[in-house]
Amino acid sequence: MFREAMYHVPRDKWAYAYDLHTIHLRFRTKKNDVDRVTALTGDKYDWNRTYFEVELEKAASDEYFDYWEGPVRPKFKRVAYLFRLIAGSETLFKSDNEFHDGMPMPTGGYYEFPYIHHVDLFAAPDWAKKAIFYQIMPDRFANGNPSNDPPGTLAWGGQPTLTDHFGGDLQGVLDHIDYLVELGINALYFTPVFTANSYHKYDTVDYKTVDPHLGDSSILKKLVEACHARGIRVILDAVFNHCSDQFPPFQDAVAKGPYSPYADWFHVNEFPLAVKDGIPTYDTFGFYSNMPKFNTGNEEVRKYLLGVAKYWIKEIGVDGWRLDVADEVDHHFWREFRDVVKSAKPDAYLVGEVWSDSLSWLMGDQFDSVMNYPFSDKVLAFFGGGMDGHHFAGHMGSLLMRYPQQTNEVVFNMLCSHDTPRLLTRLGGDKRKLKLAIVFLFTYMGTPCIFYGDEIGLQGGADPDCRKCMEWNPSRQDRELYDFYRKMIVLRKSNPALRGGRFRFLMADPGNPCIVYERIDDRIHFTFWMNNTGEPSTLSHPMETDDWRDALTGEDFPTAEGRLSIQLDPYGYRILYRNLDGSGEAETSERPQQIM
Amino acid sequence: MFREAMYHVPRDKWAYAYDLHTIHLRFRTKKNDVDRVTALTGDKYDWNRTYFEVELEKAASDEYFDYWEGPVRPKFKRVAYLFRLIAGSETLFKSDNEFHDGMPMPTGGYYEFPYIHHVDLFAAPDWAKKAIFYQIMPDRFANGNPSNDPPGTLAWGGQPTLTDHFGGDLQGVLDHIDYLVELGINALYFTPVFTANSYHKYDTVDYKTVDPHLGDSSILKKLVEACHARGIRVILDAVFNHCSDQFPPFQDAVAKGPYSPYADWFHVNEFPLAVKDGIPTYDTFGFYSNMPKFNTGNEEVRKYLLGVAKYWIKEIGVDGWRLDVADEVDHHFWREFRDVVKSAKPDAYLVGEVWSDSLSWLMGDQFDSVMNYPFSDKVLAFFGGGMDGHHFAGHMGSLLMRYPQQTNEVVFNMLCSHDTPRLLTRLGGDKRKLKLAIVFLFTYMGTPCIFYGDEIGLQGGADPDCRKCMEWNPSRQDRELYDFYRKMIVLRKSNPALRGGRFRFLMADPGNPCIVYERIDDRIHFTFWMNNTGEPSTLSHPMETDDWRDALTGEDFPTAEGRLSIQLDPYGYRILYRNLDGSGEAETSERPQQIM
Repeated sequence: MFREAMYHVPRDKWAYAYDLHTIHLRFRTKKNDVDRVTALTGDKYDWNRTYFEVELEKAASDEYFDYWEGPVRPKFKRVAYLFRLIAGSETLFKSDNEFHDGMPMPTGGYYEFPYIHHVDLFAAPDWAKKAIFYQIMPDRFANGNPSNDPPGTLAWGGQPTLTDHFGGDLQGVLDHIDYLVELGINALYFTPVFTANSYHKYDTVDYKTVDPHLGDSSILKKLVEACHARGIRVILDAVFNHCSDQFPPFQDAVAKGPYSPYADWFHVNEFPLAVKDGIPTYDTFGFYSNMPKFNTGNEEVRKYLLGVAKYWIKEIGVDGWRLDVADEVDHHFWREFRDVVKSAKPDAYLVGEVWSDSLSWLMGDQFDSVMNYPFSDKVLAFFGGGMDGHHFAGHMGSLLMRYPQQTNEVVFNMLCSHDTPRLLTRLGGDKRKLKLAIVFLFTYMGTPCIFYGDEIGLQGGADPDCRKCMEWNPSRQDRELYDFYRKMIVLRKSNPALRGGRFRFLMADPGNPCIVYERIDDRIHFTFWMNNTGEPSTLSHPMETDDWRDALTGEDFPTAEGRLSIQLDPYGYRILYRNLDGSGEAETSERPQQIM
Repeated sequence: MFREAMYHVPRDKWAYAYDLHTIHLRFRTKKNDVDRVTALTGDKYDWNRTYFEVELEKAASDEYFDYWEGPVRPKFKRVAYLFRLIAGSETLFKSDNEFHDGMPMPTGGYYEFPYIHHVDLFAAPDWAKKAIFYQIMPDRFANGNPSNDPPGTLAWGGQPTLTDHFGGDLQGVLDHIDYLVELGINALYFTPVFTANSYHKYDTVDYKTVDPHLGDSSILKKLVEACHARGIRVILDAVFNHCSDQFPPFQDAVAKGPYSPYADWFHVNEFPLAVKDGIPTYDTFGFYSNMPKFNTGNEEVRKYLLGVAKYWIKEIGVDGWRLDVADEVDHHFWREFRDVVKSAKPDAYLVGEVWSDSLSWLMGDQFDSVMNYPFSDKVLAFFGGGMDGHHFAGHMGSLLMRYPQQTNEVVFNMLCSHDTPRLLTRLGGDKRKLKLAIVFLFTYMGTPCIFYGDEIGLQGGADPDCRKCMEWNPSRQDRELYDFYRKMIVLRKSNPALRGGRFRFLMADPGNPCIVYERIDDRIHFTFWMNNTGEPSTLSHPMETDDWRDALTGEDFPTAEGRLSIQLDPYGYRILYRNLDGSGEAETSERPQQIM
């Protein structure tokens, strides 16, 4: 066995409490190197009488590794453990930092999970596990009140620039709630709505008021109430890394320098606050002098921003926050932020904007979730063409193993956003590829999010092109695509297996871009068949049972000689299911339905 | 290159801020597999103009891996990076979760250290880097006031049991400060001194009073003041995982059950609080029903214990806390604890009792240090016999790579404690082996600690035998051993290189238990030569320069043909040094001195 490839540490995603009674253990081995991994567990204060073995399952694989996983349920909330590895006739034991040929004495050197503490437990909100998000950039979604348009507002539907306004507002969203309900989404994420000079509002000037061009507090409240009445949760964008240079405390620091009571609110390298030789004398977001970075180490800053976070929950009832540039704000702040927000609303959902490996923020003390850009990159690379199923499965496995299960259940999976080119554009305008990607998104683990307009075929390259106005003229909307999104949303909402069921690739082969995967819980078994090529293709895979049915059309699919063979059009797919409780029929609202 | 053996994550000990301007990066490769590791770094908002390469050094190796390390000093407190690996003519690039044959585009997928925040920075107290600790169990060190002895106190020097008192107290320590000053230690760690029924006092009944058999608050204050006047810091034992079953709030909960205002102070599985079928109905330390575990998730418990921590700092001036059973208390509590303690005394030193991998507590938000039992296990296994230098060096390298440098500088390195057999006993009573282990302890990285009496030859097996009374009769003290300890302490205290200098094994070979290692800073270069066998031995190693001198005797050691050859008695050692600034002489108090 390749010892150098083995990995486990008794912390973070490798050993964590999943609930008050369950610790998840993960162990990594070189790919196809080890046959069995068993956790040998016990209470260190009475090892022999509490000894228990837990067989780990191969939960994921990537290009280099197999990942083994299993739940340990110790009687007294604490566990010491080591691993037994078997490959052929070879057996090896791995304790904390050492390998042993035989079982080492039960004293010292074992891994330890010392105690499951309720207060340390990472519990993501339940509703987020069932949520289907829809992201709205208010200036670009709908103009419900032309009287609040800023001077120079462009005509709806024109080509966006980096600076122009189009007049969209909160009344516009309120006017289109029926559209959102019909689509089926049950959560909204708004890019910033607080007073700011830009149309995108990531340069906040006043954190306590709704931007007058978007509306006011009462219309925001009305909107949130209307959403809640229709079963839609609402999260807002918290831009706490930086503010606008027009933010009054920053202006005060500019004016008074070190004598300003706000001087320490920012990271000042040199007074006066100015741009010197092209570089600001204070820290900024990126190198944008108009976006000074907050000093969240300052107690008054913390008090102010935490007050903002609480205010909008208490006053307006928002259900959580998306945290802008979250990785550049300190961990101490986010820990306090979580405490404040969860005290105000225990099931608030916190999604950080972190583009790279985010585990530092995802151990239960900071965020519930992050925007899963690595996921969208791999999904688009695969369905965009040029990657085989084997590599795709490896990437997905690797991403699943990045985070604890709590996060995987609510990680914010979007395929594009206001910060990337549009989904359809990234897939070369090919709607068939987009549908494959969307089927994958809605049948995979994590909380999916649709960027406004994707569902009716909006296209666009990088910012500003991806932020075009929403198309409301039905004749220019792709209604067929809209109906497809609607069907996929119904399918996900009515099937817990698509959210919490076990995920596994059944076919993901080198050199072949076609894949088959499954989701399964104790009531239903789904299989997904995807021809990710431009040629017709027949996918065939061994299937023990005979009772497969198409989840969208109701067609029966019999096996032949223990195999299912599915003919698929270029970039075609099939979603099959069978019931596992013997009823043989999809009867309840929790079962797949023929949609059309 | 063996990709499966490579490891880096953009967090914890692999990527951390060492100070406000410096990020340490570490990268792991298979042993002897890679020739060069370079960090390619830049600011993600302006990669090309900030691009900078940092060559990593091979900082440590163990049985399976090489560990590469280097400092990155980004201009704008943030850095994106990837690694370039070179082995022979082969070059490979490693970014976040992916390998590349060529340098990947500077967009996405790089590792990131988003921003160095002052508030997140892990700064261990400076004094702890220079500290030489001495651990005292008050009942067993010296009886300064027989009038406070509990009934049934045994005569000083008798065979200890698990329950008997010997009458030692704080006055006894006060009476022997000269002894401690003469030995040279500059920090004391006391096992618990608060009111408790047992002699060891790990079952606290009153956290706000000094145990009457040990003294009172005023004598503790007098003792701390006397220590401070002599340059000795004092840390106490915080037993916050559990209390005594005689702790009044627990007694209240026993009496009133769920109606007690203290019912939630403990982890109650079932009322009444009792032992049922041999198992307590509440969580305990181990399975000891007389040590109920605190529910540190309860706000009043937190307030109470944090008040205790602050009280003894403010009232008595203690310099820090050793945290008993620290791993079984929740992380939220320890984060708040650190904030409270560091607010009361910014340079307080916090040492957790964690026997296994402790990184979860050592990222700057909780402890400064842990009791380094894995270190003592390996040091004793090596000097006890049966391990070769190669394996020993591997273990030391592996332990160094467990924690960030901040912790390595102040990790609490003791070779025994009240919870293990005595050092001399674990080394088979062989004083020569003990001296080798002590030379290693005092010339290695980390904060050394002596368990009371080791320095005059106390022996003893596991608890209670290791907790014998201190021997004060000079004729029964090993004065030669005491002088040896004294010399080693002087050597360490007068040479910063022995604390902060670079450590490296020069000779650590398979099959050979003899070792040579060095410590070096910009002013002095030490080499340590150890014959860890029962036969006379000559150790020979290439040495470029000729000006080596024995740090203890002053003897000159010339090289011959570019080598130093040192004849050593069985279990003998030599400590050689040479000055690096050209003076050729040890002149200042910061230089080695001939001790005798």
